[in-house]
Amino acid sequence: MTIETVSQNKAHGGVQGVYRHRSTATGTDMTFAVFVPAHEKGARLPVLWYLSGLTCTHANVTEKGEYRAACAAHGVVFVAPDTSPRGEDVPDDEAYDFGQGAGFYVDATQSPWATGFRMKSYVEDELPALVAAHFPIDPGRQAITGHSMGGHGALTIGLRNPARFRSISAFAPIVAPGRVPWGEKALAAYLGDDRTAWRPYDACALIEDGARVPEMLVDQGDADPFLAEQLRPELLRVACDEAGIALTLRMQPGYDHSYYFISSFMADHVAWHAERLGA
Amino acid sequence: MTIETVSQNKAHGGVQGVYRHRSTATGTDMTFAVFVPAHEKGARLPVLWYLSGLTCTHANVTEKGEYRAACAAHGVVFVAPDTSPRGEDVPDDEAYDFGQGAGFYVDATQSPWATGFRMKSYVEDELPALVAAHFPIDPGRQAITGHSMGGHGALTIGLRNPARFRSISAFAPIVAPGRVPWGEKALAAYLGDDRTAWRPYDACALIEDGARVPEMLVDQGDADPFLAEQLRPELLRVACDEAGIALTLRMQPGYDHSYYFISSFMADHVAWHAERLGA
Repeated sequence: MTIETVSQNKAHGGVQGVYRHRSTATGTDMTFAVFVPAHEKGARLPVLWYLSGLTCTHANVTEKGEYRAACAAHGVVFVAPDTSPRGEDVPDDEAYDFGQGAGFYVDATQSPWATGFRMKSYVEDELPALVAAHFPIDPGRQAITGHSMGGHGALTIGLRNPARFRSISAFAPIVAPGRVPWGEKALAAYLGDDRTAWRPYDACALIEDGARVPEMLVDQGDADPFLAEQLRPELLRVACDEAGIALTLRMQPGYDHSYYFISSFMADHVAWHAERLGA
Repeated sequence: MTIETVSQNKAHGGVQGVYRHRSTATGTDMTFAVFVPAHEKGARLPVLWYLSGLTCTHANVTEKGEYRAACAAHGVVFVAPDTSPRGEDVPDDEAYDFGQGAGFYVDATQSPWATGFRMKSYVEDELPALVAAHFPIDPGRQAITGHSMGGHGALTIGLRNPARFRSISAFAPIVAPGRVPWGEKALAAYLGDDRTAWRPYDACALIEDGARVPEMLVDQGDADPFLAEQLRPELLRVACDEAGIALTLRMQPGYDHSYYFISSFMADHVAWHAERLGA
């Protein structure tokens, strides 16, 4: 498990790094970003995972997410993976919402995606082991968040691994991919037409099927153009209420789907996770 | 004086806008960004001008500058102009440090630049009038900052207009363009070989020639690759000491020339200006 340093820049007293490695899960080179705040030698810090949305790489949140000041203040490591395998040899699609940049955090089972589009295994297993081996993190104190498709990733990975993640939040997440156009398109292509295979990748379905966490935090802009058709947070509200999960769903007036929205509430999310991580 | 709205996004409780207008100074369309924090109806807010460095447009600081949280907290408007006229009909040069993206905040007198490269008039006169007409600012409470070539712009415009700007700061500024390669190349091409014409565009020369302000704040990374050859803050230290200007020059260990550096100290600069603006 070796990694190559693409860049390191001092920022907010810590180091913002970008790294590359050969992934077993995807069979490709994968790039990811890690911010490590200033810390005492030998310290092991809690870690917040951030999963990005459609079309994004690690770079969008790294440049526009405004998380470093809050992570530095709370002593939290911030990890941002890519959203799919990439490269000329990797299958792709012309649409922005499918193929490269749109891995949906699933392990695909359908051709031609099944070989490389294994973002569940990558984000859930391979990258955590790599990060734990190379960065000063405490694997016992992890939290997860994400935006849009990455909010879907955060909710589903968090719900499937409640013992690993002490806290789960999301910005404008796709809460029920099995019931919205973005998700139906991607899950059918990656997983096939049998919708029972989709349920482990659908936050609302996971909760209906018994997944439990004590609480979740979701921010959603009410001027988000994807709100009514693709995001539908009211479905998560119903699922959480029926399951007894304390969902804090904040409808933020006037905010859209962009990083202007995300960055406005990023410090809030970091602080919320930090409290639950004992940071 | 009409302006066109390119985009507006709610952010940190305010509005991050990007606007376009036909400039009399440059004879081209010019794009600029303005962040207006939440404020009471009819209020007039203090304004902080930010001038960008080589190769940048308004977009770099707007996306990566991390100023909105601090401007929202202090109630300060933030204006980010472009760094030169742009377009297919505008003269250009292949070098990154000259031509489009490298206006150096001068009014050029040499062919072919004299027609459009009038960034002094644009930033000092035309854009302030436009901003005052269209945004809720208090022209009596203005401050200025900038990065690298834009730090040069902030220092020189501030020193030439001490009655207008209550405070001046800079990130890794070119403090003496008449004595470093970037500046010698640009000023000779824009202004001709007579170096006396350069002095109003050189912060150290302006101070030597009698310009006075009470104080200035400069942050400079000591791992900045341009420090020794292009930036040379020690020349500003000498000029300020001899003139009795209270220069706070902070050498920041390990920081480079990037927006990772700028964003790390942006909140500090906004707070410093806000105090002097009575914000």
